[in-house]
Amino acid sequence: MSTLAPVWLDAVRWDAQGLVPVIAQEVGTGDVLMFAWMNREALLQTVTLREAVYWSRSRNRLWHKGEESGHVQKVHDLRLDCDTDVLLLKVEQIDRIACHTGRHSCFFQQFSGTAEDGQWVAVEPVLKSPEAMYKKGEPTA
Amino acid sequence: MSTLAPVWLDAVRWDAQGLVPVIAQEVGTGDVLMFAWMNREALLQTVTLREAVYWSRSRNRLWHKGEESGHVQKVHDLRLDCDTDVLLLKVEQIDRIACHTGRHSCFFQQFSGTAEDGQWVAVEPVLKSPEAMYKKGEPTA
Repeated sequence: MSTLAPVWLDAVRWDAQGLVPVIAQEVGTGDVLMFAWMNREALLQTVTLREAVYWSRSRNRLWHKGEESGHVQKVHDLRLDCDTDVLLLKVEQIDRIACHTGRHSCFFQQFSGTAEDGQWVAVEPVLKSPEAMYKKGEPTA
Repeated sequence: MSTLAPVWLDAVRWDAQGLVPVIAQEVGTGDVLMFAWMNREALLQTVTLREAVYWSRSRNRLWHKGEESGHVQKVHDLRLDCDTDVLLLKVEQIDRIACHTGRHSCFFQQFSGTAEDGQWVAVEPVLKSPEAMYKKGEPTA
C-alpha cells in the first residue's frame, strides 16, 4: 500500500487541482493566522511531522512553514469541515509570527468606513522586519 | 460611478472566477465557524448590510447566510490578508449555529490517530436538527 493511500486522506474532497484550503488558527488566543493550501503529500507530511506543511501554489512545491524563517507551526489539532473540503489547523506559532511581513497574523488589514468610502487599514504592528527574517532569496515565511 | 466600483473593492485580488475565500470567525470565542466564498456583489452587500452575504458556488447565486435558517451572521470586523486575496469576517452568529448540520461550527470532524491509522471523528454536538432548521427545500444554512 502506498504511503499516500490511507483512508483518512481519501475522505478529503480534493479540488480539481488536488488541493484543499487550509485555515491556520493559533491555539490559546484563537487568532486566525493565515490561509494556505495543501495537497495529499502536504497533509500526510503535516500529520507525520505534527508541523504545518503546505503546498505553495506560487512556487509549485511543498512548503514546510518556517523552513527559512524558523517560524514553524506545531500542530495541536486538525479538523475537517462538514463538506470535507476545508481543513482547520490549530497550531502553536513559533515566535508568534505567521506573516511574511513580520506580523503576527496575515489578516492585519482592517476594513474601515462605509461601502461608499471604505478603506483597508493596517492595524497590526510589524514584530520583525522581513529583512531580518529572510537571509537569502525571496520570502517564503 | 457604479455601486460596484469602490476603490476598496478593487484592492481585493479576485480569482479567475471573480471570487475570494472567506473565513468566518465568531467574535468573543474566536471559534472558526465556516469557510465560504464571496464575489464583488456579495462583499458589497456584506459591508452594506453588516451581515454575511456569500456567493454559493453550488447554487451559483448570492447567499445571504441565514436567509432560510435564521442563523444570520452579524459582521463586527472585516479583514483582508497580506496578499489581499483572503477575507476574514468576525461575526456574531445568531443562535450560535453556523453549520447546516445544526452544529456550532462546520469544523466538527477531528483527526485522531496517526498517519497510518488516522480517522475523522465528529466531536461536536448537533444543537438543532436540520429538519427543524429547514422547513422547505434543500439546506442552505
